[in-house]
Amino acid sequence: MRAFNFSAGPAMLPTEVIMQAQDEMLDWRGTGMSVMEMSHRGPEYTSIATEAEQDLRDLLNISDDYAVLFLQGGASSQFSMIPMNLLRGKSTVDYLNTGAWSQKAIAEAKRYAQVNVATDSTANRFTTIADQADWQLNSSAAYVHYTPNETIHGLEFAEIPDVGDVPLVADFSSTLLSRPLDVSRFALIYAGAQKNIGPAGLCLVIVRKDLLGQTLPGTPVMFDYKTHADNGSMYNTPATYSWYLSGLVFKWLKRNGGLEKMGEINARKASKLYQAIDGSDFYNNPIDPRYRSWMNIPFTLANSALDKQFLQMAADNGLLTLKGHRDLGGMRASIYNAMPEQGVDSLIAFMAEFERQYG
Amino acid sequence: MRAFNFSAGPAMLPTEVIMQAQDEMLDWRGTGMSVMEMSHRGPEYTSIATEAEQDLRDLLNISDDYAVLFLQGGASSQFSMIPMNLLRGKSTVDYLNTGAWSQKAIAEAKRYAQVNVATDSTANRFTTIADQADWQLNSSAAYVHYTPNETIHGLEFAEIPDVGDVPLVADFSSTLLSRPLDVSRFALIYAGAQKNIGPAGLCLVIVRKDLLGQTLPGTPVMFDYKTHADNGSMYNTPATYSWYLSGLVFKWLKRNGGLEKMGEINARKASKLYQAIDGSDFYNNPIDPRYRSWMNIPFTLANSALDKQFLQMAADNGLLTLKGHRDLGGMRASIYNAMPEQGVDSLIAFMAEFERQYG
Repeated sequence: MRAFNFSAGPAMLPTEVIMQAQDEMLDWRGTGMSVMEMSHRGPEYTSIATEAEQDLRDLLNISDDYAVLFLQGGASSQFSMIPMNLLRGKSTVDYLNTGAWSQKAIAEAKRYAQVNVATDSTANRFTTIADQADWQLNSSAAYVHYTPNETIHGLEFAEIPDVGDVPLVADFSSTLLSRPLDVSRFALIYAGAQKNIGPAGLCLVIVRKDLLGQTLPGTPVMFDYKTHADNGSMYNTPATYSWYLSGLVFKWLKRNGGLEKMGEINARKASKLYQAIDGSDFYNNPIDPRYRSWMNIPFTLANSALDKQFLQMAADNGLLTLKGHRDLGGMRASIYNAMPEQGVDSLIAFMAEFERQYG
Repeated sequence: MRAFNFSAGPAMLPTEVIMQAQDEMLDWRGTGMSVMEMSHRGPEYTSIATEAEQDLRDLLNISDDYAVLFLQGGASSQFSMIPMNLLRGKSTVDYLNTGAWSQKAIAEAKRYAQVNVATDSTANRFTTIADQADWQLNSSAAYVHYTPNETIHGLEFAEIPDVGDVPLVADFSSTLLSRPLDVSRFALIYAGAQKNIGPAGLCLVIVRKDLLGQTLPGTPVMFDYKTHADNGSMYNTPATYSWYLSGLVFKWLKRNGGLEKMGEINARKASKLYQAIDGSDFYNNPIDPRYRSWMNIPFTLANSALDKQFLQMAADNGLLTLKGHRDLGGMRASIYNAMPEQGVDSLIAFMAEFERQYG
């Protein structure tokens, strides 16, 4: 039986997608090969890779001004690749600090550039975001970097910041494909696959082609976006199986109404769960309602001595991986695209029952 | 039906392993989750990861002096990581140039260090390797790097070079686990997974712990071996599914007699195929018999106009991906651990029949 798995990532994938992969595993369409056994340069795999990229371009309406890269190394590699590629002779960069992932990006950027933290939510413990009017943006920055959704803190921007002509760079690891997105607002978007996209080991990068080709001296050839853009992400052997599975997810999204429909469902899932939390004195979510994440919903119990009991009973009910991040404690429900609405309903019902028994 | 797939990589995996993965795909051991959906920090995945590392240590007899890392980015990332991590204040490094992959490693190392090419097989078109007595090794080099087996040229070292006290670094992408290996002779071994280990997207690194912690300034945090050694390869989300599948391959190796037995079978497979080539005037392999690869066997037809016909008929007989590398033309049979002996026998029989018809 398939459980409802609330892991922040790697996370649930659509059951339909896993069943298709299972079905095709020993022999992909009569070729006698598993996809994971195919030469990445052969015609079979080339068709899989090309189709996946096209489906992603369709879903997000990505213009030819952008390269779409299927890379390895996770978002953590992007934290270095971004300054190494996008400084382009400048020395200052703007970062917005809204949580743990912003902080990691900032720490790594500081090794390559002078980082101006234009707004900082540390003082409010990452529970809200200052109005843009109060940010200290620097118009000569090489770029502005931000984290649209903080996976650990559950803090999310309600809108895309307006940074004028300065290139905007965003870590969309936990929200890409969860709703429509205007890619043309960005210079670079990156996203680790293991939330809404596919299995871990793949990182999507969508980058404006005109920004490439001006890396810092000493940039490893594999950390130069141009290396990958010039070679269709096949300068070396890519993570072929994760790329294939992501392609199956893109087709699943297309079959199920695309990002408009996903956005509707995800808004409803999140809204239900926040209502359940807010409607109870037993559960609490500390985030400013204007900036609550649709994807990652941390909550605490009135009595943390009950945490262990809560997690055990939830698991017994097929509701898995609800333990909060080790830095915050409490609980966290990550409800990406592949989490069925029924899973959120089950969680809400369980929470009510648990409160009735122990509240 | 499963074909015999002679791809150089990604390459065949043992059918038993793929069947087990298929069986466990929707629900790993009653957890309700696919392995690719598990949090990499949860108890289920931790047990999978730990067991895989231990099995690899058992197979290769790796001592605690070495860290075993499960990284992303392929061998191509290692080409930069090696100088960035192992120069340790020195400026000169020795490289042996025995083929296309040596050349790639050298080109990248030149960006960080003064590279002394201690021996160079360019003049003999990578068909043989000079005796070690004729190499120009530099005793003050930070390390010596070589490529034990050249996947494209099919040129392989018969023995581990003796480089005295200078740390020895080797790209074992195409031969690791194909036979026993004395790891203690090396400072660092690396290997892209997609030949003898598991699916693409994973790169194994086995490195002496005492060498870590002295990276070049500007080394990205993800390119510092210490980052990964200190965090059990989980500084960030690793390629969890490839790691799991590699673990299944390690167990398959243990069940089937370990590396001694693999070495016997692989020696026999290679020897048969070379005999068939050498016993015919129609087929040719140009490599000095002392340095012929056990894993990658390139060969040409007396009349290259027949190449297309050969490939088509081979494919019709379930013998796939025999086309040679684009730089060399002709054919190449890659016969890693997972290629059954029966696959080599079938290829030899087909080659004889093709020669009878067209020779």
